[in-house]
Amino acid sequence: MPVVTFLPSFRKVTVPRGSTILDAARAAGIEMNVVCGGEGKCGKCVSVVKNGKVTVDETRLSRFFSPEEREQGYCLACMSFIDEDIQVFLPESSLVQAQQILIESLGRTTEFHPAVWKYAITLKPPTLENPSPDLSRLLWGVEQAGGPPAKKVYAPLEIIRRIPRILRDSGWHVTATVALVPGAYRLINLEKGDTAGRLFGVAIDLGTTTIVAYIRNLSTGDMVGVGSTYNRQISCGEDILARVNFAKREGGLSTLQSLAVESINTAITEAANRGGIDCDDIYEVVVAGNTIMTHILMGIDPGYMIEEPYVPVVRRHLTTSAGRIGVSVGNTAPMFIFPAVSDYIGGDIVADILACGMAEHEEVSLLVDIGTNFEVVLGNREWMISCAGAAGPALEGGEVLFGMRANPGAIEHVTLDPETLEPHIETINGGKPRGICGSGLIDLLAGLLEACVIDRTGKINTGISHPRIRMGAHYPEFLVVEREKSAIMKDIVITERDIKNLIMSKASVLAACFTLMKVVGVTTDAIKSVYFSGAFGNYIHKENAVTIGLIPEVDPSQIHTIGNGAIEGASIALLNRKARKRLDEIAHSIGYVELNASSSFMEEYTRATFLPHTDLSLFPRVEERLKACRLRRGAGP
Amino acid sequence: MPVVTFLPSFRKVTVPRGSTILDAARAAGIEMNVVCGGEGKCGKCVSVVKNGKVTVDETRLSRFFSPEEREQGYCLACMSFIDEDIQVFLPESSLVQAQQILIESLGRTTEFHPAVWKYAITLKPPTLENPSPDLSRLLWGVEQAGGPPAKKVYAPLEIIRRIPRILRDSGWHVTATVALVPGAYRLINLEKGDTAGRLFGVAIDLGTTTIVAYIRNLSTGDMVGVGSTYNRQISCGEDILARVNFAKREGGLSTLQSLAVESINTAITEAANRGGIDCDDIYEVVVAGNTIMTHILMGIDPGYMIEEPYVPVVRRHLTTSAGRIGVSVGNTAPMFIFPAVSDYIGGDIVADILACGMAEHEEVSLLVDIGTNFEVVLGNREWMISCAGAAGPALEGGEVLFGMRANPGAIEHVTLDPETLEPHIETINGGKPRGICGSGLIDLLAGLLEACVIDRTGKINTGISHPRIRMGAHYPEFLVVEREKSAIMKDIVITERDIKNLIMSKASVLAACFTLMKVVGVTTDAIKSVYFSGAFGNYIHKENAVTIGLIPEVDPSQIHTIGNGAIEGASIALLNRKARKRLDEIAHSIGYVELNASSSFMEEYTRATFLPHTDLSLFPRVEERLKACRLRRGAGP
Repeated sequence: MPVVTFLPSFRKVTVPRGSTILDAARAAGIEMNVVCGGEGKCGKCVSVVKNGKVTVDETRLSRFFSPEEREQGYCLACMSFIDEDIQVFLPESSLVQAQQILIESLGRTTEFHPAVWKYAITLKPPTLENPSPDLSRLLWGVEQAGGPPAKKVYAPLEIIRRIPRILRDSGWHVTATVALVPGAYRLINLEKGDTAGRLFGVAIDLGTTTIVAYIRNLSTGDMVGVGSTYNRQISCGEDILARVNFAKREGGLSTLQSLAVESINTAITEAANRGGIDCDDIYEVVVAGNTIMTHILMGIDPGYMIEEPYVPVVRRHLTTSAGRIGVSVGNTAPMFIFPAVSDYIGGDIVADILACGMAEHEEVSLLVDIGTNFEVVLGNREWMISCAGAAGPALEGGEVLFGMRANPGAIEHVTLDPETLEPHIETINGGKPRGICGSGLIDLLAGLLEACVIDRTGKINTGISHPRIRMGAHYPEFLVVEREKSAIMKDIVITERDIKNLIMSKASVLAACFTLMKVVGVTTDAIKSVYFSGAFGNYIHKENAVTIGLIPEVDPSQIHTIGNGAIEGASIALLNRKARKRLDEIAHSIGYVELNASSSFMEEYTRATFLPHTDLSLFPRVEERLKACRLRRGAGP
Repeated sequence: MPVVTFLPSFRKVTVPRGSTILDAARAAGIEMNVVCGGEGKCGKCVSVVKNGKVTVDETRLSRFFSPEEREQGYCLACMSFIDEDIQVFLPESSLVQAQQILIESLGRTTEFHPAVWKYAITLKPPTLENPSPDLSRLLWGVEQAGGPPAKKVYAPLEIIRRIPRILRDSGWHVTATVALVPGAYRLINLEKGDTAGRLFGVAIDLGTTTIVAYIRNLSTGDMVGVGSTYNRQISCGEDILARVNFAKREGGLSTLQSLAVESINTAITEAANRGGIDCDDIYEVVVAGNTIMTHILMGIDPGYMIEEPYVPVVRRHLTTSAGRIGVSVGNTAPMFIFPAVSDYIGGDIVADILACGMAEHEEVSLLVDIGTNFEVVLGNREWMISCAGAAGPALEGGEVLFGMRANPGAIEHVTLDPETLEPHIETINGGKPRGICGSGLIDLLAGLLEACVIDRTGKINTGISHPRIRMGAHYPEFLVVEREKSAIMKDIVITERDIKNLIMSKASVLAACFTLMKVVGVTTDAIKSVYFSGAFGNYIHKENAVTIGLIPEVDPSQIHTIGNGAIEGASIALLNRKARKRLDEIAHSIGYVELNASSSFMEEYTRATFLPHTDLSLFPRVEERLKACRLRRGAGP
């Protein structure tokens, strides 16, 4: 049976021989204008057959189309019968609604409104009778093929210079790429022949540690390939402060910038190789990163952000061309950099907000992004408020004796039998344990608390006589994995000091949440969703995060992990230019609370240095459960 | 008495001590909003004192302005008394109408709407309480100073990178330059301190032979300096065809482009030196040139315009940045290139049209631009039609025995005594004659015709016995200047062959005019104005141009010379961005008649190879005069 491919969406459908294009469109879920009911009378269902042939009644069509239009493939969908595989372009005017492709991402769908299009066109060569200029001829062809009006397309000199040669060398059969840039359409490429199927874009998460690239097909929205790499700037300093200080050296900024670009190019190349595409066919780049990273990438001095009064140079979104920055994709590809809220709340968090959709919800949501630093955003579509702080390294496994990053061999989940205190552990990759990563540490804390091994201050109850509870070299400790079962030939333990460090870290996050809630007068009841962004949040056991008081007590069903929100948000912006439009507005409207200057935060912090909190009435379900546990262990209510 | 300078117009006025700003504005012809009649009640006449002090009643002003605004110089014009020289910025909202400066040019006035502005501002340094980003702070300052809304200003990366350093090094006292580019405002420069007085633009006539630059003050519209130079491309070929052929060589186009840029830079530097300004303070460049010249300047292959089917690559206006092309003005200065009508009717002719204003008139005008080639445009604000052709070199003094260009020593005017046949001559610079230039040749032709020395075919009546009428080496000739009175120690004569060549040249122009008139069905009566553009037209004796039949017979009072229309038109476009808006539309709507393909033209040409024309009824006044002359000389009617 013949396959019909609809352009510009590239939606495909297989139909029985003899079907009309209108039948095929219906089968593909595309609603066309058919005022006359499909009887060839109203002339609304105009279609353009681009490849292959259809059977039509020429005399009937002559009412609607000139001979030139017929030659170009113009026909009526209801009167064109399909015998073979064809490609059909459907002008917007022939559709009841513009073709909308919904892209699934995180269970959310986003509308597909790319900002770059390709038009494969065959032009009539100029003659003495029609000697119109090459550029007009080309842009008129683009307009005829469903592109923007010729008058509204800006052609940069670099492209204009190439036009006459390409048109003639290709026998006037070319593909034009047009991008919607702020305020105008721009002709960004011209290629010989039909390259319309090769139209890609890349979303980049520019992290301090890791860089991730998603290549998407900008005709279909499909994922093409993923790539990731370490940020090579690490050679200039592990943490972000070290990078900024490095940038202050002679030539430091340009070194850091080159390394960022190099890393991005590595990630893009990996993604392109996996997808089997050529980087030159990437026509748009969208980057989300923290404020310092994006300053560095753009070659803008980040130094003023670490000195009082801590100001970024730019907060709004930036646009430039990938070629100018050195990103190795199509040279004229536009590049969009996410706007930031402040020096501490960067484009990565704005991307998180886009990814979780909280800026569109009527209900109040809480977004928590935890790494060495954490960022918290509270709000809904009317208002938003944010803060950021240092969580300390404990939640990422630092400053914990057997803590480690979420690498192979890390214990990522622990369940403690409340009776026997026997831990059931799961490691990343299933191998022998080498240490414990963040999510495992949270599980452990919750398990030890519920088993009454530790009290709400984190103190180990050494009064319990159990082989796993013992005195270590310096501090009391709990034995998680025996030496012989570990991959490191050591007992893997968690010490009381580890636990105190973890409590201090989690207290910062919880205090930040409560501080924001206090500023806007919102109680826990009002929060309908909590979104965890980042690798840490992704593997967290939701109930245990509440049990230890990392976040306010909401029902676990209200807690959602959005994975790498930065790349997901960048991806949405890449696929849906309309989503980009609101980003500046969102970023600009988000309030920022400086925790260091907030006495309220210090108070909240002190109150949060208990498991889950000094005031158990704020965690009624946890209180209930702890009471039950204590009764079970006979420890009294 | 104190001098008040109003911004942004830089209009100055001297007023008695104790006058209000409102008084001063009235004296300067600026109408301010004073709903309350100037009693300090309505708060409409907001002004901002930028330099100097005024005496105000602070308590009264506190109703209208915050302390911050007062600190910035905000006051009410009607309640602020002048004691010393001040600079006052008047926001548009305080004016009854936007300040409009009319610029005189060719007796025409053009409204002054520049596309580039400077804003000298003093910003508050960031504090912990107000840590907004540098870019926002700057653009907000620009907005406060009467500039475009911060949100609408696009800042390119190159400028953003420089912002933090300049703001801090200048103590937050800077001047921002903003340009209106297609679709957006663009921040194009940032300088330390107040440089608002240094804002210039340059208009360029890019001719095949000569390049002219006019530098204008973009705050006042004033002319600053003029520069001109030969087009250095002449080393690659004298005429335009030779240049296009040179462009086809390996590296030829880029050589020609560099030479064009070099010549432009020479002309600009000369104009800048004369005006005593720095080229870096030039913030906009507008170029008018023929289609081939502008293609070459932009690095676009002009080759397809000289091969069938003769197509330019681009016809619409182009914008780029001067820096990208290599024009040595402010690096980020936008550059505007006039649109063309066709390969033969270039941006120089579109500039002519702008300069003479024919596209705004209801009445029909005829524009004639004569050089080696000629261009003719006929029309009004509803329609326009054009053609171009080769006039041959005769009208420029070529192919004429003693013909020469309009250089010192050239006879530019001749009056022949109809009785004595004694010529009265005027030479350029008043020196001894060396030859005859175009305008002199036309005078001579008219004089000889009216004296019946030649007949309407150009034949010399050797039957007249007069020492000045004689047989030369090959042809009959008329002695214009005797050997001893000439600078070249030779008799300066005009031969019958010279006269025939001149008739062929003038016949081309007249036939072109009649062909266009025929195409649109317009008779001579309907033509209310004839505009001569170009150096040739500038010195022509209007009546004689009609007498010989160079143009259709209109009253001499209807003939206007617009001088170098290309530079005048470019100048208008530089000063009035609103005039630019219509250029593409004008250029696009002008019809083009290909004379070589027109049988009508060949017919008209044959009919025009008489003085003034084979059909004297088309030149009734000339007919009348010739009859009178013939009678006077007893030659019969």
